[in-house]
Amino acid sequence: MTSITTGLACPVHEGSRNEWITLAHGEGGRLMRRLIQERIMPPVENEFLRPAGDAAVLPPIKGRLAMSTDSFVVSPLFFPGGDIGSLAVYGTVNDLAVAGAVPRWISLAFILEEGLDLDTLEHVLASVSAAAKRVGVAVVTGDTKVVPRGAADKLFINTTGIGEMVDPAPPGPSALQVGDELLVSGPIGCHGMAVLGAREGFALDSPLRSDSAPLNAAVAALMQHNVQLRAMRDATRGGIGAVLHEWSESSGHTLAIDEQRLPVLPEVRGACELLGLDPVHVANEGTMLLALPHEAVKLALAILRAVPETQGAVQIGRVLARGVANVVVSRGVGREVPLDEPLGAPLPRIC
Amino acid sequence: MTSITTGLACPVHEGSRNEWITLAHGEGGRLMRRLIQERIMPPVENEFLRPAGDAAVLPPIKGRLAMSTDSFVVSPLFFPGGDIGSLAVYGTVNDLAVAGAVPRWISLAFILEEGLDLDTLEHVLASVSAAAKRVGVAVVTGDTKVVPRGAADKLFINTTGIGEMVDPAPPGPSALQVGDELLVSGPIGCHGMAVLGAREGFALDSPLRSDSAPLNAAVAALMQHNVQLRAMRDATRGGIGAVLHEWSESSGHTLAIDEQRLPVLPEVRGACELLGLDPVHVANEGTMLLALPHEAVKLALAILRAVPETQGAVQIGRVLARGVANVVVSRGVGREVPLDEPLGAPLPRIC
Repeated sequence: MTSITTGLACPVHEGSRNEWITLAHGEGGRLMRRLIQERIMPPVENEFLRPAGDAAVLPPIKGRLAMSTDSFVVSPLFFPGGDIGSLAVYGTVNDLAVAGAVPRWISLAFILEEGLDLDTLEHVLASVSAAAKRVGVAVVTGDTKVVPRGAADKLFINTTGIGEMVDPAPPGPSALQVGDELLVSGPIGCHGMAVLGAREGFALDSPLRSDSAPLNAAVAALMQHNVQLRAMRDATRGGIGAVLHEWSESSGHTLAIDEQRLPVLPEVRGACELLGLDPVHVANEGTMLLALPHEAVKLALAILRAVPETQGAVQIGRVLARGVANVVVSRGVGREVPLDEPLGAPLPRIC
Repeated sequence: MTSITTGLACPVHEGSRNEWITLAHGEGGRLMRRLIQERIMPPVENEFLRPAGDAAVLPPIKGRLAMSTDSFVVSPLFFPGGDIGSLAVYGTVNDLAVAGAVPRWISLAFILEEGLDLDTLEHVLASVSAAAKRVGVAVVTGDTKVVPRGAADKLFINTTGIGEMVDPAPPGPSALQVGDELLVSGPIGCHGMAVLGAREGFALDSPLRSDSAPLNAAVAALMQHNVQLRAMRDATRGGIGAVLHEWSESSGHTLAIDEQRLPVLPEVRGACELLGLDPVHVANEGTMLLALPHEAVKLALAILRAVPETQGAVQIGRVLARGVANVVVSRGVGREVPLDEPLGAPLPRIC
C-alpha cells in the first residue's frame, strides 16, 4: 500500500490504545480509509474483498442462486454461547442453507455508534472471521457507517448472502402433505433465554447458553443422502411457534405438535417458567424445523444426529387435515388445544 | 392468504390511522407477519419475493457476478431531490454499475425505531419501489428489525445488490496510465450540500437539490459502445477528492485536476463558500468519476451527454507521472498545489 502524504496531523487517539470510533471514521476521508483497510478488512481478508466502495467481482455459479439478508441488533453484543459477529454469519448462512443452497459469499455492513470502543469492533470482527471460516463462506464486500452518539446502540450488522442452489431443492412449506412428520434439530428456546439472561442479569443455577450455530453441514448431509424433504426453516424470531404458523398458512393444513416430545433443556424450562414464557415462542439461532414424509424420518434423524450441531434432533409432531386451528399442541394427557400465534413476543432484540 | 384464528385482541392502533411501529412489530409474531405481508412487501412485489425468513431463489446468471452492500443512515430521511428510499436503491445500483455490472437484484433490510410513523415507512417504500422500477432491479428478499426508542434514529436501510458482469469490464484504478484523462459525469457537491441544507435549515436564494440518481444507464451506454474505460467510481462520501486519492494510491500515479473545469452549481458554490467547504470533498449520490485513455474521451463525453443523468459530463483532469503529491489541483492561474485528503469530513450522515 502506498503511503499517503498529507500535511494534516492525526488526532492523539489514532494509533494508540483506548481508541474509539468518531464521526470522522465514517465520512470518506483518511480515517475511514485507514479504519477499513487496517482494522476491518484484514481479519476477513480473501481474494475477492477489495477496498471500500468497490463491488466484489465473483466467479460464475452454474445453477440457480439463493439470496438472503438479515440485520442484527442484538443487545448485549456478547452473550453466553455467541456474539453479534458469529450470529450475523450463522444467521444468513442458515437462511441460505434451509432454502437448499450451499452458502458461498456474504457481505458485511456495519452501522457504528460514535464512541464505540475499537476493541469491541475488533472482537466482533474476530468472531465474524472465525464463523466465516467454520462455515466456508467468504466476506467479499462491506460497508461501514458511523452515526452520532445516541443515534444507534453501539453496533448493528447487516449480512447478505449468496448461495448456490442444490437441486432438487426442498419444495417448501406449500408442499406439506397430510401425514408428513415434523422434526426439530435440537433443544428449543436456548438463544432467546440466554440473551435475556445476559441482558437482565438474572442468576440461575445452570448457565443459559445460546444455540447460535451453523446449520449448513446438517442440511448438506441430508441433501447428499437424497433425503426427501418438504421444508426446512431455522426457527429464529417467534421460535418454532412462528414457523408452525407460517407453514400452516402456506400449506392449508393443521400442524400438530406433542408438548412432551419438545426438547427443552432444564435451565431453559426453569427460566421460562419463572418468566411465564412458552419455549415454543422463544427464539433459536441454530435450530431448525423440518417437515418430511413419514418414510424419510428414520434416515433423516440418523443423519442429523451424526452432525454435531443437530445431534439433538427429534420428531415432535405431524401434519393433519385442516381442523379448527392452524396449529395444535398436545399438552400432557389432555386433548389437543390450539397454539396461539402471539401478536409480538416478550423478547425484543434477541437477534 | 389463509386468515389466522387466534383469541388475542389487536391493539387499538392496528388497522387505524396514526399508526406507529412498536417493538412487537419486530418480534416474529402476528404483528410482524402482517407488517411485512401487508405493508412492506406489496409496494415491491415481484415473482422472487417471498415471505420473511425465506431466501430468494434466483435464476442462473451466465457470467461473473458482482456483489455490493451499503447501509443508509441519512438524516433527514427526506431532502430536496431525494430520500433514503431512492438513495438506498441508487446507491447500491451505482456501486454495481461502476464495477461494470448490470444490476439485477437487491435485498432491502430495515432497522426501524420504535415509535416510527407508519406513514413515513410507506413513503420510503413507495420511493424504493419507484426507484427499483426506474433502474430495472427487483427487490427479492428483505428483513425488518425494530429497536427500542433511542436505539436508532427513525429508520436505517441496508441494500445489497447482485449484478451480472459485462465483459470486458473496466480493469479498475490500478490500470490508470500516465496520459489518461479524468471526467466527471455532472455537477459536484449537490448531495452533501442539499442534505446539510435540509438538516440545518439554512435559507438560500436558490434551493439546493441532491444529485441522487442512477448511473446504470450511462454506464450501459458506454459499455455498449465499447468505450475503452480504465475505471469508474461514484463519488459518494468524501466527494471526488476521496476517489482521486484512492485511485492515486491504487495506480501509483499523480492525479491532477483543474479547479476551473470543475462543474459546481452557483448555489452549491455559494453554500460551500459560506461554510468554508471545498466542493471537491462534498458527497455526491449520482455523479461519477471516470478515467480513460485520451483517444476515448470524445466518444465518452458524447455518450454521457446523451444520457439524462450524466448530461453535464466534462473533462476535469489527467493522470501524471508520480510527483511529490498524490493529487494536485490547478487553482486559477497559479501553479499546481497538493489536494489534501481530509481526515474526515464536515458532513456526517449524508448517505
